[in-house]
Amino acid sequence: MFREKIKVLDCTIRDGGLINKHDFDFKFVRAVYKALSEARIDYMEIGYKNSKKLFSEKEYGQWKFCDDEHIKKVIDGIESQTKISVMVDVDRVDVEDVKPRKESPVSMIRVACYVKDIDKAIFLVNQFADKGYETTVNIMAISKAMDTELTEAFHQLEEECKAGVIYLVDSYGSLYQESTEYLVKKAKSIIKSKEIGIHAHNNQQLAFGNTIEAIIHNANYVDGTVYGLGRAAGNCPLELILGFLKNPKFDIRPVLDLISKEFIPLREKMEWGYIIPYAITGILDEHPRAAMALRDSDKKENYREFYESLIGSGETQ
Amino acid sequence: MFREKIKVLDCTIRDGGLINKHDFDFKFVRAVYKALSEARIDYMEIGYKNSKKLFSEKEYGQWKFCDDEHIKKVIDGIESQTKISVMVDVDRVDVEDVKPRKESPVSMIRVACYVKDIDKAIFLVNQFADKGYETTVNIMAISKAMDTELTEAFHQLEEECKAGVIYLVDSYGSLYQESTEYLVKKAKSIIKSKEIGIHAHNNQQLAFGNTIEAIIHNANYVDGTVYGLGRAAGNCPLELILGFLKNPKFDIRPVLDLISKEFIPLREKMEWGYIIPYAITGILDEHPRAAMALRDSDKKENYREFYESLIGSGETQ
Repeated sequence: MFREKIKVLDCTIRDGGLINKHDFDFKFVRAVYKALSEARIDYMEIGYKNSKKLFSEKEYGQWKFCDDEHIKKVIDGIESQTKISVMVDVDRVDVEDVKPRKESPVSMIRVACYVKDIDKAIFLVNQFADKGYETTVNIMAISKAMDTELTEAFHQLEEECKAGVIYLVDSYGSLYQESTEYLVKKAKSIIKSKEIGIHAHNNQQLAFGNTIEAIIHNANYVDGTVYGLGRAAGNCPLELILGFLKNPKFDIRPVLDLISKEFIPLREKMEWGYIIPYAITGILDEHPRAAMALRDSDKKENYREFYESLIGSGETQ
Repeated sequence: MFREKIKVLDCTIRDGGLINKHDFDFKFVRAVYKALSEARIDYMEIGYKNSKKLFSEKEYGQWKFCDDEHIKKVIDGIESQTKISVMVDVDRVDVEDVKPRKESPVSMIRVACYVKDIDKAIFLVNQFADKGYETTVNIMAISKAMDTELTEAFHQLEEECKAGVIYLVDSYGSLYQESTEYLVKKAKSIIKSKEIGIHAHNNQQLAFGNTIEAIIHNANYVDGTVYGLGRAAGNCPLELILGFLKNPKFDIRPVLDLISKEFIPLREKMEWGYIIPYAITGILDEHPRAAMALRDSDKKENYREFYESLIGSGETQ
């Protein structure tokens, strides 16, 4: 697949930070930035821009806050065309913390929200757009959104929102190709003036397949992470995206090197990937939190009981 | 997806046997058979029927030969609707070793071949059909077959072959959804009197996605293995197929139990799954043998060098 408009965003540090409270050290983050730059990835998302009034710097690492000076320390001296992105959550950011783009190393700000918070997201993202940033709105848990709500949200995004890209986020890793096709086509049919993006989780080993499916139906922004790193089952592996996209600007080799040197050792210390409890929450279209709790318990391999607890604890009418 | 005609074949022991010279012990194979029976899987493929003139019983375990008495020992006393399947390779089987179906615990024989050997496969499979077996022809390395060869083979299979099912086998794990769709549609357009099956490898984490894609385009026979066990990157995980198929006859729970009790410990001793050198051979549409050799060497995590050796050693004109 070669379509020049396709942009690849790596969110290894941002999504991976959900596992370790955003506490990756500088050396590691710099190694990732260097490899992504050599691979000519379009964007690197480095963390969240959260309010320090709401979260403590004692409890969380620096990529929960993404101060400009910390970002500068990562990128300093590395030749790169890779732009820096940060994510913000509705209700968790101080807009005044965000300087005008010209004064910041950040190029893109992505606002994550549930469909019910679309008004807040639009209000927020428009302010970042006015500060000069490239912007996106990322609609999380899209598999749980009611179709009518989604229709309304897509119309609002098309009409009221300055973001250049609207991302569909399969937070629970529960989409199949048919549902991905449906959602991308629906978004494209309403949101005509913006690009569509896809962020897929890998609970059912479908993150890459669903990303391809979205590309087939003209999504042009795709998220990946190195070796699939990310909370719970993780994300679409960046290296597979690079193997699939035929744009000659991309180079898979620095990413392969990075996996050898940094991610194989990391996987010994940090857990993510295809793990049955996450597959189960994906199949059942549920948040992975129950599976994450299970993996922290002494019943971590007790899959049948876990499955039965989830199907047994649902609504009774 | 609920289509009653869809049949699920588990080939855990057969494909997994390629890792350990078909030397699974009786207790393990019996545990698999019991769980598959409780899950109401349609077929369990237990191994290969190879000639003892060509392969030594000293070098290989019993599932390389699948003597009827060994199969009987596995299934004895377990209530089951799950039929037993064995695979044969062209040129490696003694037809006279195969008793008439009525005298055997085997219900299905699958003949694996490359497209160039289609005449031999048809000659062979027709003999097994005449002995009363359900039969399939499995075309391996389908991503490497020339389109014109495939057209001819499909016509021959439709016109000369008694097998009930023709399988498309993505031996290298290199297919994407679009190529899977193309191949299944092509097969369906020529082979009208038989069912189409799909056997996918998981090098690029697309085994499940490609299996779904084949189902969407009316393939009705799908292969899976428990926890994706299989040579190199392994196969489409059976548990994911069961989560996707909505036929109420299937029960995922015995398979979850089996993974907890048998496959998590097994994975400590035996390697398969998403491993970068296998992803690389999948991306490059190559046999995994170079990657398997790498994994047995002290350069097992040296991905960049491996990638460069593969792209550097290709044809020069």
